[in-house]
Amino acid sequence: MVQNKETGLTYRDAGVDIDAGEELVHRIKPMVRSTFNERVLTDIGGFGGLFDARFPELKFPVLVSSTDGVGTKLKIATMADRHDSVGSDLVNHCVNDILVCGARPLFFLDYFATGHLKVDVGTAIISGFVKACQENGCALIGGETAEMPGIYEGSDYDLAGTIVGIVDRERMFTRENVQEGDVLIGLRSSGLHTNGYSLARKALFPRYDVNDKPEELGGESIADALLKVHRSYLNQIMSLLEEFEPVKDIHALSHITGGGIVGNTSRVLREGLSLDIDWNAWERSAIFKLIQSAAGVPEDDMRRTFNLGIGLILIVDPSVAEAVSSKLQSLGEQPVMMGRIARG
Amino acid sequence: MVQNKETGLTYRDAGVDIDAGEELVHRIKPMVRSTFNERVLTDIGGFGGLFDARFPELKFPVLVSSTDGVGTKLKIATMADRHDSVGSDLVNHCVNDILVCGARPLFFLDYFATGHLKVDVGTAIISGFVKACQENGCALIGGETAEMPGIYEGSDYDLAGTIVGIVDRERMFTRENVQEGDVLIGLRSSGLHTNGYSLARKALFPRYDVNDKPEELGGESIADALLKVHRSYLNQIMSLLEEFEPVKDIHALSHITGGGIVGNTSRVLREGLSLDIDWNAWERSAIFKLIQSAAGVPEDDMRRTFNLGIGLILIVDPSVAEAVSSKLQSLGEQPVMMGRIARG
Repeated sequence: MVQNKETGLTYRDAGVDIDAGEELVHRIKPMVRSTFNERVLTDIGGFGGLFDARFPELKFPVLVSSTDGVGTKLKIATMADRHDSVGSDLVNHCVNDILVCGARPLFFLDYFATGHLKVDVGTAIISGFVKACQENGCALIGGETAEMPGIYEGSDYDLAGTIVGIVDRERMFTRENVQEGDVLIGLRSSGLHTNGYSLARKALFPRYDVNDKPEELGGESIADALLKVHRSYLNQIMSLLEEFEPVKDIHALSHITGGGIVGNTSRVLREGLSLDIDWNAWERSAIFKLIQSAAGVPEDDMRRTFNLGIGLILIVDPSVAEAVSSKLQSLGEQPVMMGRIARG
Repeated sequence: MVQNKETGLTYRDAGVDIDAGEELVHRIKPMVRSTFNERVLTDIGGFGGLFDARFPELKFPVLVSSTDGVGTKLKIATMADRHDSVGSDLVNHCVNDILVCGARPLFFLDYFATGHLKVDVGTAIISGFVKACQENGCALIGGETAEMPGIYEGSDYDLAGTIVGIVDRERMFTRENVQEGDVLIGLRSSGLHTNGYSLARKALFPRYDVNDKPEELGGESIADALLKVHRSYLNQIMSLLEEFEPVKDIHALSHITGGGIVGNTSRVLREGLSLDIDWNAWERSAIFKLIQSAAGVPEDDMRRTFNLGIGLILIVDPSVAEAVSSKLQSLGEQPVMMGRIARG
C-alpha cells in the first residue's frame, strides 16, 4: 500500500506543514514555561493542561471563565506587520472580563489559526500572550495552532483566548448590589482596546495610510494609536480591594468592550435602574476625535461602538466615592467621576 | 457633535450588525440554558461564566483544560450547507482531550467568528455545541460571537472551543504508568473526526462533488462520510473506570488527532519505550481507502495525518487486556487489539 512519495499527494502538498508547527512549538516552549507557577501540574505537549484546584483559603471558591477574540484589530497588526502586541490585547481583555466579577486569573489558553503558518509571526504572537500572562500572574497552560488554508487568506490569522480565574463567592460582584445614587468612576483606556476596529478602519483608511502621522494625533502614527495595548486593570483593582470591600463599598465593575459604555454597564444593572452619564466629564483621546471627524460617524454610533477613553467603570457607594478616587490617583490613575446610577 | 445619520459612517456600514448578534443571543439563550446544572452560578450575558469550584469528594482536585478547533472540516460543512454537527465535533474533540488525562468535563466555552453573521447558520452551529454538551454532561457556560469582515470571506467562519474538566490527582493518567508489554486496545472512530481535512479535500474534490455517492462508499455520499460527528468516548471510559482502576489497570489513554496513531500515542510514552503496532489488526473504513486511492497518498502521509479508523487507544496492563476488551464489547464497542508497548 506504500505509495511513491514523488508522485502521491502529501499532507504538505495540501498546504499543511506539520514541521513548521513543530518548529513553532520548539521555539515557544521556554517562553510558555516561564508563565508556569507551582500550581501548574503539567508540561507542554500533553493532551490537557493540568492545574491544582485546591483553594483551602476560600470559603466558597467559584471558577470564573471567559472566551474572547481580538476582532479586526488583527487587520491593523497585519497592515503594520507588528504581531507582538495582539496576544497581550487578548489576555488583558479576558483578565478584565473576569476581574469585573471579582476574580483573579489562574490560567489562559490560546487558539491561533492561520492560512499559512509563518513561524516568525507565530512566535511574535505567542510572545504577546506570554508577556501579558506574566504581567497578570496567569499561566499559559494550553493552546492550539491550526493551519487552515482555504479559510484564512495567505498569512491572515485569527486569535481566540480563554481565561479561567477564581473568586470567593462572598466577594463576587453581582448586579444585586448596585443601588440608585451609586457613583460611576471611570478608568482611562489606552485607546480603542479591542473594539470598533471595523468602523475605525472604514473611517480612516480611505483617507490615511497606517504609517501616516496626522497633525491631530500630535506626532503619533495611525498604527501606533490603533495598536495601543488593551489595558489590564487587575493590579489597580486588586490594590483597591485591599482597602475597600467588594459588595459593601464597591458594588460592581463594568468592562467597556463592544457595545460601549452604556451597553456594557447596563449589564450590571437590575430592572428599574439606569445610567446617568456626564458625557462631558472627560476629554476623549485624539484617536476617537479623528475617527469621528474623518467619516462623520454619528455620535450614537460612536457611543455604542467605542469605549471613548473609558476602559473600566467602578460603581461605588457614594460614601466611599472620594476615597476610592484618591486611592486610584495614588495608584497612578486619572479616575473620572462620570455620573451616577438613577432610577428608571 | 451629533452627526446626521443619513450621511455619516455607521457601525452597520462598516459591516458589523449588532442587531443580528443580539437576535442570535436571543435565539440561543434557552438552548444554552438547557446545558446548565446546579453547579452553574451564572446566567447568560454576564462578563464571565461562574461555576462552583468545591470538590469535597476529591482528595486532590486537578483542573484539566484544553482548547481546540475543527480545522477545515468547516469547509465541508459550508460546501454541504450543514452546520449543526461541527459544534458537536468540537465539543467531543475537547471532551476526549481531557478524558485521556482521566478527567470528566465541567464546562465549555465557544468562539464563533465569521465574515458576515447569518443568524440561521449561527443558531445551527450553537445547537451542535448544545447537543454535545448535553450528551457529555457539560455546561455551555460562555462564548463569543465575532463578526470580522475582512478576515473571513463572506459567511465563512471559524470555531474554537475550550473545555475545563476535573480529575482526582491519584486517578490521573500520566506517562509514568506505561510499561513494556502493555497492550494497545483501539476504539473505532466514526470517520476522520476532525483531522486531515485539508488533505482529504485536496484528494477528493477535483474528482468528486460533495453530494456524489461513489460505489466505494456503499451508497453514502461524500458529505455524509466526511461530516460524521467526532465521537466522544466519555461514557465508555467512565463505565470502564467503574470496574478497572486507572493507573493500576489502565495505564494511559491516547486521543488520535492530528499526527495520527503514532504521533499521538507517542505523547504518553516515556523515553526508551516505543509502539509495536499491528497495522493489519483492523480494516480501515471506506472513506480512508477512497482518499488514499483517489490521490495516491503515500502510506506514511496517511498514517501521520489520519486516525485511520481508531479514535482512542487504551494502554492497559496485560493482565486485564482480555477483560477490558470484553467489557468494551458489552458497552457496544468493537475494540481492536492493535499491538503492544515495546522497548526502544
